[in-house]
Formats: sequence, structure tokens, C-alpha cells
Amino acid sequence: MPTKTKSSGSKKRSSQTKSAAKSSRYVYYFGDGKADGAGNMKPLLGGKGANLAEMTRIGLPVPPGFTITTEVCAYFYDHKRTYPTVLKAQVESALAKVEKSVGKKLGDRERPLLVSVRSGARDSMPGMMDTILNLGMNDTVVEIVGQKSGNPKFAWDSYRRFLQMYGDVVMGVQKRAGEDHEPFESVIEHLKDERYGNHQFPDSQLNVDDLQELVQRFKDLIKERTGKSFPQDPRAQLWGAVGAVFGSWNNDRANVYRRKYGIPHEWGTAVNVQTMVFGNMGDSSATGVAFTRDPASGEKVFYGEYLIDAQGEDVVAGVRTPKPIAELAKEMPAAHRDLLKVRALLEKHFKDMQDLEFTVEENRLYILQTRNGKRTGLAAVRIAVEMVDERLISKEDAIKRIPADSLAHLLAPIFDRKSIAAAKKIATGLPAGPGAASGQVVFSAEEAVRRAGRGEKVLLARIETSPEDLRGMIAAEGILTSRGGVSSHAALVARQMGKVCVCGASGIEIDYQKRTLTASGVTLKEGDYLSIDGTAGEVFAGEVTTAPSEIVQVLVDGSLKGDKSATYKQFSKLMSWVDRARRLDVRTNADTPEQVRNAVAFGACGIGLCRTEHMFFEGDRIDAMREMILAEDKPARVKALEKLLPYQRKDFAGIFQALEGLPATIRFLDPPLHEFLPHDHAQQSALAEKLGVEAAQIARRVHELHEFNPMLGHRGCRLGIVYPEISEMQARAVFEAAAEVQKKGKKVRPEIMIPLVGFPRELKLQIDIVHRVAADVAKEKKTKFTYLVGTMIEIPRAALVADEIAKDAEFFSFGTNDLTQTTLGMSRDDSGTFLPAYAELDIVATNPFAAIDQNGVGKLMEIARDLGRKTRPNIKLGICGEHGGEPSSVKFCDKLGLDYVSCSPFRVPIAKLAAAQAALS
Amino acid sequence: MPTKTKSSGSKKRSSQTKSAAKSSRYVYYFGDGKADGAGNMKPLLGGKGANLAEMTRIGLPVPPGFTITTEVCAYFYDHKRTYPTVLKAQVESALAKVEKSVGKKLGDRERPLLVSVRSGARDSMPGMMDTILNLGMNDTVVEIVGQKSGNPKFAWDSYRRFLQMYGDVVMGVQKRAGEDHEPFESVIEHLKDERYGNHQFPDSQLNVDDLQELVQRFKDLIKERTGKSFPQDPRAQLWGAVGAVFGSWNNDRANVYRRKYGIPHEWGTAVNVQTMVFGNMGDSSATGVAFTRDPASGEKVFYGEYLIDAQGEDVVAGVRTPKPIAELAKEMPAAHRDLLKVRALLEKHFKDMQDLEFTVEENRLYILQTRNGKRTGLAAVRIAVEMVDERLISKEDAIKRIPADSLAHLLAPIFDRKSIAAAKKIATGLPAGPGAASGQVVFSAEEAVRRAGRGEKVLLARIETSPEDLRGMIAAEGILTSRGGVSSHAALVARQMGKVCVCGASGIEIDYQKRTLTASGVTLKEGDYLSIDGTAGEVFAGEVTTAPSEIVQVLVDGSLKGDKSATYKQFSKLMSWVDRARRLDVRTNADTPEQVRNAVAFGACGIGLCRTEHMFFEGDRIDAMREMILAEDKPARVKALEKLLPYQRKDFAGIFQALEGLPATIRFLDPPLHEFLPHDHAQQSALAEKLGVEAAQIARRVHELHEFNPMLGHRGCRLGIVYPEISEMQARAVFEAAAEVQKKGKKVRPEIMIPLVGFPRELKLQIDIVHRVAADVAKEKKTKFTYLVGTMIEIPRAALVADEIAKDAEFFSFGTNDLTQTTLGMSRDDSGTFLPAYAELDIVATNPFAAIDQNGVGKLMEIARDLGRKTRPNIKLGICGEHGGEPSSVKFCDKLGLDYVSCSPFRVPIAKLAAAQAALS
Repeated sequence: MPTKTKSSGSKKRSSQTKSAAKSSRYVYYFGDGKADGAGNMKPLLGGKGANLAEMTRIGLPVPPGFTITTEVCAYFYDHKRTYPTVLKAQVESALAKVEKSVGKKLGDRERPLLVSVRSGARDSMPGMMDTILNLGMNDTVVEIVGQKSGNPKFAWDSYRRFLQMYGDVVMGVQKRAGEDHEPFESVIEHLKDERYGNHQFPDSQLNVDDLQELVQRFKDLIKERTGKSFPQDPRAQLWGAVGAVFGSWNNDRANVYRRKYGIPHEWGTAVNVQTMVFGNMGDSSATGVAFTRDPASGEKVFYGEYLIDAQGEDVVAGVRTPKPIAELAKEMPAAHRDLLKVRALLEKHFKDMQDLEFTVEENRLYILQTRNGKRTGLAAVRIAVEMVDERLISKEDAIKRIPADSLAHLLAPIFDRKSIAAAKKIATGLPAGPGAASGQVVFSAEEAVRRAGRGEKVLLARIETSPEDLRGMIAAEGILTSRGGVSSHAALVARQMGKVCVCGASGIEIDYQKRTLTASGVTLKEGDYLSIDGTAGEVFAGEVTTAPSEIVQVLVDGSLKGDKSATYKQFSKLMSWVDRARRLDVRTNADTPEQVRNAVAFGACGIGLCRTEHMFFEGDRIDAMREMILAEDKPARVKALEKLLPYQRKDFAGIFQALEGLPATIRFLDPPLHEFLPHDHAQQSALAEKLGVEAAQIARRVHELHEFNPMLGHRGCRLGIVYPEISEMQARAVFEAAAEVQKKGKKVRPEIMIPLVGFPRELKLQIDIVHRVAADVAKEKKTKFTYLVGTMIEIPRAALVADEIAKDAEFFSFGTNDLTQTTLGMSRDDSGTFLPAYAELDIVATNPFAAIDQNGVGKLMEIARDLGRKTRPNIKLGICGEHGGEPSSVKFCDKLGLDYVSCSPFRVPIAKLAAAQAALS
Repeated sequence: MPTKTKSSGSKKRSSQTKSAAKSSRYVYYFGDGKADGAGNMKPLLGGKGANLAEMTRIGLPVPPGFTITTEVCAYFYDHKRTYPTVLKAQVESALAKVEKSVGKKLGDRERPLLVSVRSGARDSMPGMMDTILNLGMNDTVVEIVGQKSGNPKFAWDSYRRFLQMYGDVVMGVQKRAGEDHEPFESVIEHLKDERYGNHQFPDSQLNVDDLQELVQRFKDLIKERTGKSFPQDPRAQLWGAVGAVFGSWNNDRANVYRRKYGIPHEWGTAVNVQTMVFGNMGDSSATGVAFTRDPASGEKVFYGEYLIDAQGEDVVAGVRTPKPIAELAKEMPAAHRDLLKVRALLEKHFKDMQDLEFTVEENRLYILQTRNGKRTGLAAVRIAVEMVDERLISKEDAIKRIPADSLAHLLAPIFDRKSIAAAKKIATGLPAGPGAASGQVVFSAEEAVRRAGRGEKVLLARIETSPEDLRGMIAAEGILTSRGGVSSHAALVARQMGKVCVCGASGIEIDYQKRTLTASGVTLKEGDYLSIDGTAGEVFAGEVTTAPSEIVQVLVDGSLKGDKSATYKQFSKLMSWVDRARRLDVRTNADTPEQVRNAVAFGACGIGLCRTEHMFFEGDRIDAMREMILAEDKPARVKALEKLLPYQRKDFAGIFQALEGLPATIRFLDPPLHEFLPHDHAQQSALAEKLGVEAAQIARRVHELHEFNPMLGHRGCRLGIVYPEISEMQARAVFEAAAEVQKKGKKVRPEIMIPLVGFPRELKLQIDIVHRVAADVAKEKKTKFTYLVGTMIEIPRAALVADEIAKDAEFFSFGTNDLTQTTLGMSRDDSGTFLPAYAELDIVATNPFAAIDQNGVGKLMEIARDLGRKTRPNIKLGICGEHGGEPSSVKFCDKLGLDYVSCSPFRVPIAKLAAAQAALS
């Protein structure tokens, strides 16, 4: 354990890389309680390799082996898929150590060694890359293993499994277009049909002769499909497998996955070669997976599942439904006891919930792998908070550990209690992904993607899922499977993505052919509504309406008491730690008193963006607004604005009341005026009649106001410059409302924000109006105001001349929506036609409209910060683009040294958590 | 002459300002051959003040006086229109020196002094600010002056003139809304009517009694209109006048003028107080203006005009038509001889054409003012080139002195010889602004602005022009006046703006009331066509077609031999000096072989921007292009692209041929695809029939391709990324054309430019295609290519990550059109609604789409340059936005250290001259 406490994977990467490169050490051995590597070497050894080393060091029963580093992966891709010359010798040397440790040798005629070859990236990418088991098998070895184990069926089954995997992964024998089944599966089914007249005859019932025949037919298939013979030489097998695993880093599935989770391509994968142990050596053997706590709910129970007489992939593949781990206590009490000791050891050592794979070989327990378990947002909070209560981790650790976005999970709607009571429950399964989801049921990933693309809400129902379904799972609101347990692919993905998921709902029958789902006598066709409750593991026919999350019910509705919700209690405990830890303030984007109240309940420190134009769309106001726009001259405009003034004043007063003295950043009119006018003929006529003008006049004005690129047109402060009377009215509304609320003894802190400033003098002219009106109103109402005037930095020029702008601006708020559009020259509304291709082609790592483009937009933000502070050292800096609620962007804002971020009310807790994490990092 | 050679006004400003501020010297005396100031102190003393000092120093007969510095103007505006406390004492001291020098005293009962008070900014702003003459006159002084001069009529006329000016300028007695005439003029006309029954009775015929009556009525008018009495105290008069002149720096006219000529507001004006001398003391006195060479044609003749028995403003105002200067030799031979000596002295000293004002007071010559004369573009070139021939100035001086934009004057169309021969000449006047202009005649500035705003071409015809007409003069194609000479306002403005102008065409009668123009029996109504030849001074009824300028006829048409055109000879001499002096290369933006040939004739060093999409609009090509856009899949797209390939190849081959080995920057497809599709129903149906598809399919595709902000949409390299087959076709066309031309033994240097790059990998992917296709074609055609691949820097992100982009880009070309739009968040097409207001309000100094916004866009260019060179020190840098032909932008590009600018063919000489000036500065 000497290195764990110093660990910090990514920071150490470069120095390790360098020293490793210098010493050219590409292979790290582990076994017999000793390991060349350690748990903090994830960047170099991958997650799995580092863990195998660490597990070996802390005394877990790990089968010996070695890890080929991620540097070799980088080398592999930089050098046309070749290896460093020294690699071969290092592998031979490590292999010799393994052989010595277990007393077996690869391809040996006496004691042949079998190994697994697995990928292992820095971050886990479950099921994305390839794995080879039983490597070392050949026509000779199979006989020896059969003799030695006294179980020729197991030997031949291992061989045929190996052939199948190797043929598929290394030699590329895969389903061709037009084929219904995997070719190896077809061979098996064909044989079963031939010999048993039933292609669904169970695999486990095949006899030695069947398996020998399969081995021969598999070898023939490989030769026929590839023109090459299956290699009998175990070393040739080994290098073939290593190359295939490195190669699988770049397969389609892995690329999709990396893009979704923002894993850089250049990290690469390591390859782990490890002695095979067998869970399929009869009834005294087993294999399973376990979590030290429940990964869906976070409850502190040992959680997992196993299969007797099986290999690991049988569990994950979901072909046989595994048994809950509790039953192992009855079936293999000794192994179960050892497993509980391992569980305790793991949590004590790793201080986090672990996801482990184990095998029992003839009653002896082996731990094949352990890693921090993926968990739902609900579980993440519960586990972290409870581990603090157990004094296993510090509050800081708890904060750092919970992915900020996962709080969305706690805040997401749940099913409405009344509606759910009335709904027809048709099945139950494992509650693999908490939350409520309703949508049209579909039975294939393609259909899910297609319908979601049209804006429909879909639920993906599959017998079981596989990595090929990933795109469909991303597109769906929720996932339902009829087969597979807590470690099935569906459960895994749901945990990671925070998807609502019910898995292994065995009462359901899914017919892919007919596209139907049948349960409890109800049959749903594709497109029919289905609802799933991933917290309870329940499936309902039809649509069920949703209700706010428990936390919302406590904080906002008041319909639930805090002490009645365990989830709320954990959440509020966490948020109290978060508030102590964070440096950044979190404000909210809110335009109505209602929204402000919600945001304040969620802990917002004020308003970061109040869009005044939203107020103009309601009821009669839009008429006055339109009258203003249609006005032929200034007096007419002023007259119309006078009608708008009382509305704005009332809204501002409501907002100031709701804020209880917190500051409110109020942005002056921003959108182009044509957005307020009706564009079709009928509406124009109706408006004309209402206002008593000619319809033609309205049509003409709409035509005049038409813009080729409204995003870059007459909007923002450009309106207030050309029509200063608009700014004047808005300033008056702000200050009259402030005077009104102040008169009631409440503090009011308006921060008036001028949008779309690019030239220092634009701001100056608008600020002059604000100050003048403030003075006028103060005099009229016999009061004083404490207020700030500042600007948005939302076009590149503003950032570049921020020193000049800061002469007048008392604060900057980065409007990263528009700043992204202008800096990238990319319209958010129009980017849908090419941005998906940009993600596919690795041109953008993440959607720049979701997470701040740190290299581009971020640079301008740095420039603006530096120039702004040069002129006005204590200038207040914030962000009010939608990025303000996205964790990586919040962290970037903390690094920039902003004073606050602002986001939508429901994202305030997420932003706060991200802010606390940034402060602690 | 001690300081002139060291002079360099603007550079010295700050140090002078500082030292002056330290010593608090605000007043500079000149007189008796000595002066506190000098010619190189323009920033401090203004142009006029510096010149008075310099003129005094070199021995010209200048009436003594003193200058109040521009610093006082700055102080005046910074301190609520008050003065530094020390100013009063300094003025008194200087005034005492003047009084001593001339032996007169302000307000003295024996020998009263009269002075003029005039503005004088760093750069001349003719007619924009206010002037007061005859200051010191009052009820007592008028009597004494009358007695001493023996000319009471002159005394009383001076007094009434002073009252009129002082009343208007200082006391604000001006025309009110609804009044037809200036109030003082009304009083005069009323008196003439009363006493002579004719309000057009000549001013000069009024007798002493009339003038005394006018003085009384003027004083009454002032009292009535302002409630204040006219101040009898000369010192009160002096301070009133000084304040009014400083105040006039900020009047509307002056602000419009400064905006047009980019004169900073903070420069301020100086005030010159100078002893009055009188050209109106009878027939032995005169006043006039002269140019040392002809300011319209540049010919080396003494050029000017004068009036006997008149004051200076009579000449400029154009009320009496002055006589040509040559006649002075007969009327006042001695004064004329002295004037010729002064002319020689001035050109020898100032080494530039001078514009001087003189007065002859009782046969004695005084020089009131001299300055570098404004001149037309034609004159600028001729004078500079001839002064080099005369060894008066160096070639470098010649280059530096010619405003680069003025070359447009030499390249502007002239009237077609045949068309002009057939046209009806209706009048002749002074050839005040060379060139040809045809347009609809209008008679007011307002109408000129209105019609020009609608895109109509107008000629402004006025009896005479005044500063109030400035906006109309700017809007008009040309200016025609029926009154006024070479120093009239119209002639002055025409010279400065390079406007076509004929002035003083006395055969023309203009009736403002009826809105007609009559000459030679022809009457034109407002809106009728009129044509003027400003080179010959001729006026034609109707529209006359134009022909290319002489230079174009020599260089491009070949329809004129170079040795037959003096203008061409001067031009080509200048350009040969320019080519030796400049560092920057000048390329051209050209899309056809024709354009390339023109540009090469004008001296372009290659193509800086070839827009390949322009080639897709011609003839059948648009059909293939549309077929490509409508294609449902890649194979169909490739098929359509194969049809386009031969067209592109042919165009490129033509361009490579025309370039004769010069480099060609070829930009790949840039505009969004919807620009190529028809948008109305009828055209869509026609296209559908042509392509054999459903009209609905086309409508659907148009709808799909619609974008909210096409400027920020799917265009530029985003097309080549999503449809790599397009880039592939374009690359193939380039290299197949290159191979074809190379086979003929010509050198070909393509530089392929990828547009709208923002992310380094965009460029990488496109460059990979180019290299691959180049290698393929080289192999197919058994040849080799020398080519570059680079990118446009036209969105802010590209500038910010230029270091990354430069890893792949061999050159950057700044696309400042789009870079300005994105950096400013301002659509060029939509900015018309607010940019005029921005100019009015001083938010922008110049139109950022005309001249590079150096503080904003320029900063990004600097960042890109620095980052680009960091990665690739020898990266080629250029600019291909339309700014590439604008002189201030060219100079900025030189300062940035770019390798070339690129502009439209006809602006190549302008850009070259600007480049040479930049290199010499």
C-alpha cells in the first residue's frame, strides 16, 4: 500500500511516461504478493493492470500475470501497428516469471499454462474492447488438460470457446451482411440440430464427442473464412491476441463510448496477460461478480451474482440467469466467507465501493479483478454520505467522489403517486437504474435512434442488451430487459449513464420478429406506451404521469417533509458540506418570481441572468411591445413604452421581493425586434385590426426588420443605442420597482447588464442612461439605490478590448452561448447538420454548446479576465451562459477565478457540487 | 527654417504636450520675423498656428499675432468650458507684444487695433469651424477708424460685418425654424427695400448712413433675440470669440467632417488671434487665395483668384465671382511680383504645393495663411512626380505624399469618346474635380441623400455649396455649381474627396423653387439625367456612357499607347518607384482568367483568393451542382461531382495559364449549399422537370437546408468534412489542370486554401485529401507538383488556436470579412440598420467592413501571427478580405509583418502604393 495515498493518476502521467520511456520498461509483472506496478499507475497500466498490481500487493488471491503498458498502445498506433523492439524480450521474461510461479508453461506437454488476454484502459470501458480467454489451448494441450483435470469435456469446451473467441476477435470471422447469426453460433446450432434434432439443445449438455466435432468444424470455418489456419503455436496465439486487444481500442463501439464519456483517444489501453483460473471445472467451481454495496440504490449490502460451473463471460453475457450472491453462502460456505473477508479488505483499502470479479476453482477463491464500482447518482450520494458517517472517508472525499451531474438523478421526476396507483403493473425486474420513464416501446437500437431523432420519447426493450445497442440506449428514456442481472450489460450502462432501467424482468416475453412485448396477458406493439420505475423495478403498460423528485417536493412544493425522505436527508447533508467547500458562488437564470423562489430554495446566491424580454410575451404586453416596434417615430415609441413600464415594474418588484436581498443581474432587451412580430399573414391581419393600422404596414415592418443572420444583427445593446428610450424605460422600471420594495424595508441589489457590447462606447452610452434614470428616480422617490452596471462578454471583440470596457463596467458576465457561436463561427441552431459528423471524426471532443470549448472560447475568457482586472482589479466576474450548469465548465470557471456561475434553478445543486469539487482539486 | 526638417507632427505631440503642460505655456507669439512656435508644432499650435509661426520665421510678410494651443481646447472640454487660470495673463502678455509691434491698442482711442480670431486644427477642416473678423470694433472705435483711414464707409462696413459675425457665431443669432433667411441678411434686405426699393441692391453700394443704420438695427436684433447687449468692451469681445471658436470644434458640421476623415475628437483646435489687415480699403486693396500649382490638374502654373476692395470671406463665400490671379499682374503689378516671389519662397521652403491666402492693403502684400494645398488624385500624382523631376523632393517623399486612395481617381472611368461627341454640351465651368459623372440631377443635399439611399446615382447641382451641403455632396456622384471659383467650398470639397466637380458654370441657371436647371435653352427637372466632365469642366444634358480610364486603356485594353497618355506616364513612373519601395506583395482576388489577366496587367503578384464556387453558377454547371446537392447518397453525389470536374479543371487551367507562373491561392467551396438552389416555387418546378425529380423533393431539400444564421452554418470546410467527395473533386480539378498546364512547359504554383477552419483537425482531414489526390494525379499524369496547403483565418477560434493549426497549414490567409463579422458579432448584410447610428454616436470611427478594426479584429490577427510563427517560423501570411485594398488596412498588414495583401484587380495599384508608404514610414 505504499503508493495509494500519493495517487493522482492523471497528474503523474507525464513523469511516469518519461521515466518509463527512458528505462523502456513496457511490461509489469504481478504475482505471489509482489507487483512491479501499483494502484496509482492507472495512466500507464490502465485501471485493470494497476488494480491487479495493487490487489496483489495487498494480499488478495490474484492469479499471476503481467501488464503491457498503455505506452505500447500509443507506440502501436504511431508506428503502423508495430511494437517497440524491446517488447518481445520483456514479455518473455515476465512470462517466464508467471510460468515459474504457477509451475506451468505455455504449450507445455506436461503442465500447460492457459492465460487470458484482456484490455484495460485508464478508465473502465465495460464491454467495449476485446478479451481472449483460454489462450494456450491447441490440439495437443487440450488432450493434456483433459487428462490432468480428469474432465475432458471441460478441456474440449475450453478449446472450442477459445477457438470461437480467437476466430472472431483475432482472425475476424464475423457475421456477414445477410447472415442472421454469428457464424460460430450457426455451426453450433447446426450440430445440435443434426445430432439432437433441436437447435436450442443446451450447450452444457453437449458431450466430448460433440465438442471435438465442434472444434474441428470451427477450425474448418476459420480456414474457409480467412484462408488461414488457426495457429497451434501458443506464442503466435499470444501475439495475435495482444494485437487484437490493442486494435480493439479503435473499434466503433469504443469510439462511440469514448466520445460520450469524453475519454481522450490518446490515452490508449493496456493489455493484461494473466493465468487462467476456471470456474467451470464442475460443481465445486463457480464464477461471479459482486459489489461491496448496492450500485443502484447505494444500500450497504453485499450485492452480486454467480454461476456454478461457468466461466466469467457466462455471467456478463446474460445467457444463464445467475443466482444472487447470498445463495453462495449455502452452496459454497467457505468461498462465501472468504469473499466477505475480501469485501471488507477491499472497502478498507480502497475506501470506495468496489466492483469485483471472482472465480472459485475447485472450492478455492480467486479474485480476478476489482475496481471502483459504477453506480447510479442515487447510489453515489448515498454511498459517499454513508461512508463519511462510517468515518471511512472525509467530507472532502465524499464531495470529490460524486459526479456532479449525477445529482440530476436525485432531482429527476419520479412517477406521480396517484397516477402510478392507477396504472397496470405487468411485470417486475431488478431496479437497475432508479427514476421514472415513460415512452413508446421499441425493440431495436436503430428504431430507438430513429424515433428519438424525430423528437419522440422511447423506451428500449430488449431480451438482453449488448454493446451494439449502445446508440439506442443513449437515445432511449429508459431501458428494459427480460434477461440478465445486476452485472448485465444493460444494468452496467444504466448505472453509468444514469438511465432509468429495469433488467431481468423475466415475466416479460419479447418477440423481435413480431415486435411485441407480452406480460401479464397484455401485449404491446412497437410504438405503444410503456412506463418503467427503475427505483422499484416495476413495469407498467401505458403512460404514467410524473411528479417532482422527493427533493423538489421537500424544498419547493413543501408537499413532503424533509425528515420523511432519506434521499433528501443525504442530499441536504451533502449540500451543507458543499457550501462550506466551494469558493464560487452559484446564481440562477430566472425570469419570474416563481423561478426565483425555486432557485433560492435550491440554494442560489442570487440571479445571474434575468432576461427581461421574456416578460414581454405574456398577455397584453405583447400588444404594447408590438405597438412600440411598429411606431413610426420616437414619440409614438415612447407612448407604447409607457404602457410596458407598469408591467416591467411589477415583474421586477416581484423578483426583488422573492430574492430577499440577494443580488439580481438584470439584462436589458436582447433579441431582435422581429422576434416579437407575427410572421404569417393571418396573424398580421389580426394584429392590424387590434392596433387599428393597415395589415400592409405590419407586413412592411416585418419585411424591413427581416435579417439574414439575426444572431449577428440588430439586437442586444444595439437596440438601446438606436432606441435609447427602450433602455430608459427598462432602467426606470428597475429603479421604480427597487424603490417600491425598499419602501417595504427590504434590501434590493440590482445589477444592470448591457448585452452584446463590443465597443467600449456602446456601454458608456447605455450606462449614462442608467445612471441618469437612477438619479431621477432616487430624487422622485426620495430614496437611494445600491446598484452595479456591467456588461455581458459575449462577442470576441468585447473580450479583446475588455480593458477599455472595464473602465465603465463594474462587472463582466460571460455570455458563453453567444460567445461560443461567434468564436466558433457556428450557429447553435444550424450546427445539427454537421456537429454529429464532427463528433464522429473526433474534430470536437464534446459539444461546445454543452461544455465550454476551453481551448477557444476559454482563451478569450482568460484574455477578458486579465484585461478586465488590469483596469479594475476588483471587477466582479461571472458566467450566465448555459455552460454555467455543466460541471466541467463550472470547474473551468473556478480555475479562471470567476466570482460566480449562473444556471437554471434545477441545476444549482449540480453547479454547487462542481464548484466545491473545483475548490478541493 | 531650423525646425522644419526635423518635423513629424504626430510623433512629437506627446513630448510637446508634456513639456508645455509642465511650463504651462498656452500662448505662442509671432511677429516681426520672430516666433515662439515653429512649423513642426502642428499638434500643439494647429496647422494654421504652426504655419503662421513658420511663415514669420522664413520672412514672409505675416501680420503679427498669437496662437492659443490645442491643449487649451482639451482643457476647455474637460473642464466644463473653462480655461486654465494662467491663460488670461499669457494672452494679455502676447497681446501687449502685438500692440507694441503694430503700434496700436485694442479699444484705443488713438490707434485702435482690430484682430481676427480663427480656429486652426492639426489637420485643416475648411469651413467647418467659426471665424471672427474685425474684432475690437465698437461704437467709439468705428469713428476713429473712419477718421484715421479717411474711409468712414469702410469703417462702418467693417463694424456691421463684425456685428453680423459676432451676433451669429458668438451670441447665437441664427435662422429659426420657419424663417427663410438668415436674420441679419433679412435686416439688410429690408433696409435695401426700404431705401432703394430693391432688396438685391449691391452691398458695396450702401453708403455710410445706410451702414450706420444697419449697425443700429443689428445691435437691436442681437438684444431682441438674445436678451443681451452686444459687448462694447473689446476684451469681452475677445474672450467671447475665443470661446465660440473652441466651441465650434464640437458643432455638427465639424463632427460629420471629422468622422469622414477619421480625425480624432481629442486633437482639438487651436485659436489664432492676429492683427487684421484690410483688402477692402478701396481700389488699392485686394484679397485673394492662390495655389502654387493647379490643385485640380496638378499643372505647374500659379493658380488662384482675388477680389479688389474685399475681405477674405468674400472670396470663399462665392458671392462675388473673383478674378483669375493672372489679372492681378495688370491691376497691381507690384503686389503680383511680390506674390510670385512668395510663391517661389514657399515651394522652396515647404517643398509641396501651397494654398495661400493674401491681402493687399493699400498696395502692400500680406500673407495671411499658407498650407499644403488639397488636391485631386490626378493632381497629387502629377505634382509629386514632377517635383521629383524638379529635384525638389525625393522619390520616397513622392510616394509618401500621395494618398493611396487617390489613385482610384486615375483609374476611374472617363466619358466614352463617341458618346461624349454625340452628347449635348450645355455649359462649361471650372474643372474642379476631374473624372466623369452621370446621374439624376437633384438640387438639395437632403434629396441627394434620400435618392442615394435608394441606390440611385445622383448629381448635386447648387448655385453654390456650403458646409450644410456636406452630406449631400458625399452622397452624390458629382457636384455642379453655377457660382464660385477654385477656392469655393464646392471646389475644396471635391478636391478633398476626389469627387467629380464642375464649379462656377455661370451659364447655368438653377431655380431651387421650381427645381429646375436651365442652360443653353435646355431645362432639366429634378430627376432628369445630367453628366459632367470634371477634367474638361463641361456639362452635358442626358446620360453619357463611360469608358475605362486612360491607364486601363493602356494596360488592359491596349486601345491607347502608353506614350500617348501623360497620366499613364506619371502613373507608371510612380508605380516603378512604389515597386522598389514596398515590402508587402500585392495579390489579387480573381475568379476567372479574364480577371487574372487584368490584375497581372495592374501588377498583381499572384492570386490571393480564387473563389471556386463562382465557377458553379455559370450555364449548365449550376444544374450539375444542384444535382449534387439534391443527391440522396454519396454515390449519387459523386456522379454529379464527376460532371462538375471537367468544368473546374478547365477554369483552373485557364487561370494557371494567365498567371504565367505566379502563385494562385484557390479556396475550396465555401457558401452554404442552399445558395445554389432556387427558392421560389416556379423555379423549383422548372428545376424538377429538368432533373426528372419531384418538385416536392426539391422543396423538401430547400427546407432541410434552410438555416437561421447561414453565416454561421453549414459552409466552408464543414461542407468538405461532411461531404469529403466535394473536396476530392476540387483537389482533382486543381491538380489535373496543373498537370495539363505544366505539360505545356509553364510553371504552376497552386496554394490550396481550406476555408472556415476553427478546429485543427478540420484542416488535417481536408489536407489529407489534398495530399492523397495530389499524389494520385501525379502518378496518373507522371508529373510532380509544387504546391502549398493552408487555411483561412476567418473565425476567432482559428486565431486563438493558430499554433495548433500551423502544424498542418503552410500558410494563413486572413479572411477579414468573416473575421470582422464573427469578432464583432455583426452581420455585414444586417448592420445597415444600426451602423449609421454608430458612426453618428462616435461608437465606431470607421466602418469596420471597410477598414480593419485594428483594436478588435487586429488583435486577433496579431495573436494568430504570433501563434502561427511559434509553430512554423516561416509560415506564409496574407490577407484576402476586402480590407486588402484599403490603405489604412494595408499599412496595418505591413506592420503586422504579413507577406502579402490581396484585393480586387483595380485596387492593386492602390494597395501597392499603401504598401510602399508603409515600408517607408
